[in-house]
Amino acid sequence: MMITLTSDFGARDPYVGIMKSRIVQRAPLLPVIDLTHEVTVFAPEEAGYWLYCCHPQFPAGTVHVAVVDPGVGGARSIVVLEAGGQVFVAPDNGLLGLIVQSCAGGRAYRVTEQALARLDIAPRSATFHGRDIFAPLAAELACARIEPAQLGPPHTPLPGRLRCAARQSDGSVLGTVAVIDRYGNALTTITAAALGGFAAPQVRLDGRTLRLVRTYEEARMHECVALINSSSMLELAARQASAAQQLNVQPGREVYVVEG
Amino acid sequence: MMITLTSDFGARDPYVGIMKSRIVQRAPLLPVIDLTHEVTVFAPEEAGYWLYCCHPQFPAGTVHVAVVDPGVGGARSIVVLEAGGQVFVAPDNGLLGLIVQSCAGGRAYRVTEQALARLDIAPRSATFHGRDIFAPLAAELACARIEPAQLGPPHTPLPGRLRCAARQSDGSVLGTVAVIDRYGNALTTITAAALGGFAAPQVRLDGRTLRLVRTYEEARMHECVALINSSSMLELAARQASAAQQLNVQPGREVYVVEG
Amino acid sequence: MMITLTSDFGARDPYVGIMKSRIVQRAPLLPVIDLTHEVTVFAPEEAGYWLYCCHPQFPAGTVHVAVVDPGVGGARSIVVLEAGGQVFVAPDNGLLGLIVQSCAGGRAYRVTEQALARLDIAPRSATFHGRDIFAPLAAELACARIEPAQLGPPHTPLPGRLRCAARQSDGSVLGTVAVIDRYGNALTTITAAALGGFAAPQVRLDGRTLRLVRTYEEARMHECVALINSSSMLELAARQASAAQQLNVQPGREVYVVEG
Repeated sequence: MMITLTSDFGARDPYVGIMKSRIVQRAPLLPVIDLTHEVTVFAPEEAGYWLYCCHPQFPAGTVHVAVVDPGVGGARSIVVLEAGGQVFVAPDNGLLGLIVQSCAGGRAYRVTEQALARLDIAPRSATFHGRDIFAPLAAELACARIEPAQLGPPHTPLPGRLRCAARQSDGSVLGTVAVIDRYGNALTTITAAALGGFAAPQVRLDGRTLRLVRTYEEARMHECVALINSSSMLELAARQASAAQQLNVQPGREVYVVEG
Repeated sequence: MMITLTSDFGARDPYVGIMKSRIVQRAPLLPVIDLTHEVTVFAPEEAGYWLYCCHPQFPAGTVHVAVVDPGVGGARSIVVLEAGGQVFVAPDNGLLGLIVQSCAGGRAYRVTEQALARLDIAPRSATFHGRDIFAPLAAELACARIEPAQLGPPHTPLPGRLRCAARQSDGSVLGTVAVIDRYGNALTTITAAALGGFAAPQVRLDGRTLRLVRTYEEARMHECVALINSSSMLELAARQASAAQQLNVQPGREVYVVEG
Repeated sequence: MMITLTSDFGARDPYVGIMKSRIVQRAPLLPVIDLTHEVTVFAPEEAGYWLYCCHPQFPAGTVHVAVVDPGVGGARSIVVLEAGGQVFVAPDNGLLGLIVQSCAGGRAYRVTEQALARLDIAPRSATFHGRDIFAPLAAELACARIEPAQLGPPHTPLPGRLRCAARQSDGSVLGTVAVIDRYGNALTTITAAALGGFAAPQVRLDGRTLRLVRTYEEARMHECVALINSSSMLELAARQASAAQQLNVQPGREVYVVEG
């Protein structure tokens, strides 16, 4: 069992440390792993994309908490999703959309005030539910003191702007750039499985065709290429350079795979 | 029991990791929680403000270590403060001023060479007492192998530039902006309790009056407002925008609460 | 026993968290300490310099993993170095050069596919060996389930661009600036021991002579000086200012110690 944390809290402020205090008090011996706290402020889909890519690397029983929560204190719900033996806790603002769409058999629940009260998760501030709700709730779930289905009624999470890549009527697959990583790699919503449908897949960005390689080393120095990355997602990369800069690409840009 | 760390060491250099090595060697199973290591270089009051806001979130017995220490290797003392069932370890340079001022019943001690020698905390460098003194001392305190009062004579910590907000002769409360967080919220030294003395509190920054709301969601998009944040402090915020930028406000700026 | 992590993965992306997932799954109770993940992208020598400076602060049995790996997926080897009772795991790209050169009695081995297969470290991606090889291998080594010598044949690691400072024919010692830290201190390859050979050592940078002091406090405000830092290395520093900026110095710059 372990807990992962994803947020837009950043490293400058102590908000992550305060969440950990609440987790440690309820689950003293549990490993807590930071995925990232540098999600773009108020960009829940970015957090959701990272979780979508990362969760297969974690064992069954892992509880993933993601707090990118511009609507904190307002009417938005909190959702708990059970999928693939793992549990996801997040505000219901589209953050979990990609995971819901891609995980068959997932079941989601809307967390009720009564369930929180039974877990002694109260009182709370109007501005920091990461501390007051998400952290203690994750600890209770990770310690198996409560099941997701006991937290509230079944619920369909909001889908969010990021959708899984999909086959078009002309046979091509259309996806989007979801995030740019530290190296300037542009990570897309197109899966390795989607490329499996092509005899000779070609990757298109605007008018440009990118060569599909297996490793960064196969590219010429600074050449922009496409490859299947370690999360089994299509990624635009440049050898020892920033593909995002060289291709002038931002999140949201459309990427196509076509038959070559 | 747990230890928190606060410093201006940043994430680029391995200084925090080295402190943790020293803590783990003396207290192998103790949780160590990072509050922040991105305090502005050589700004002890900023570290002190975060500790002041955060420490109520930690359980009794927590040991907080804060190292923002431009005077390392010089004549400055090291101070250990016992307050509210928790322990604070810091250089005596104003860092603990706000906590001392606000915690009734706190007792502080100046750490002596003899006490350190008895704990086998020696020898040491002239430039990195975080590693050589603060880390092992925190481990010994957190494991309850020594009491603050055994570390040296009673001592009055230096007050520092940041003071608690105070009522003025005209009935208003005068505080200052202490830090700007990642979201551009401007956190002040004015407590929720201070607002309790007003029938209809108004928040004034220069000539401007800010509306007092309960949650970020109550503000109109990008409107600058004031609210009581999750640390029970008055905060200037803007909905999904940077209040610091919109109000052109930096740490040190005066903020008033007046009767409306 | 503990594991340290050093990389150029940064804090924005979840790559470090994913490595930790793999470590925790094989070594659940072992402390994992981050040295830094903000090494300049694709600069293995910078990671190697930090490891060289930090490893004496860790106890025997520590396993240090360093992943700055532009050649991932290509022909570069993975090397395990046993030196001073500690173990270092890194790509064979010069990262370990400084440690090999300075640690007498170190023994290095090239990790073979067969050894990895015996440890059930397979299959793997072509782009993220930090997750697929380095993390599980470090866990196995730290839990003492395998010895370095069992991982493959003896191997001489690539030396890398950074070399230990050396005495010149004119009696001076020539070193280089290796990294600039957060404070703007310029850390060099010259050891305290090297200065021991001089009656009145003088530090020269271009035509300029820097005063040798014991603590930052001995310098006048903003004065550029040289001192032996907490890692016993010669460092160029300025009191409460950036020496790197004031001296306009970058990594690679030559620094001399001469008889005064």
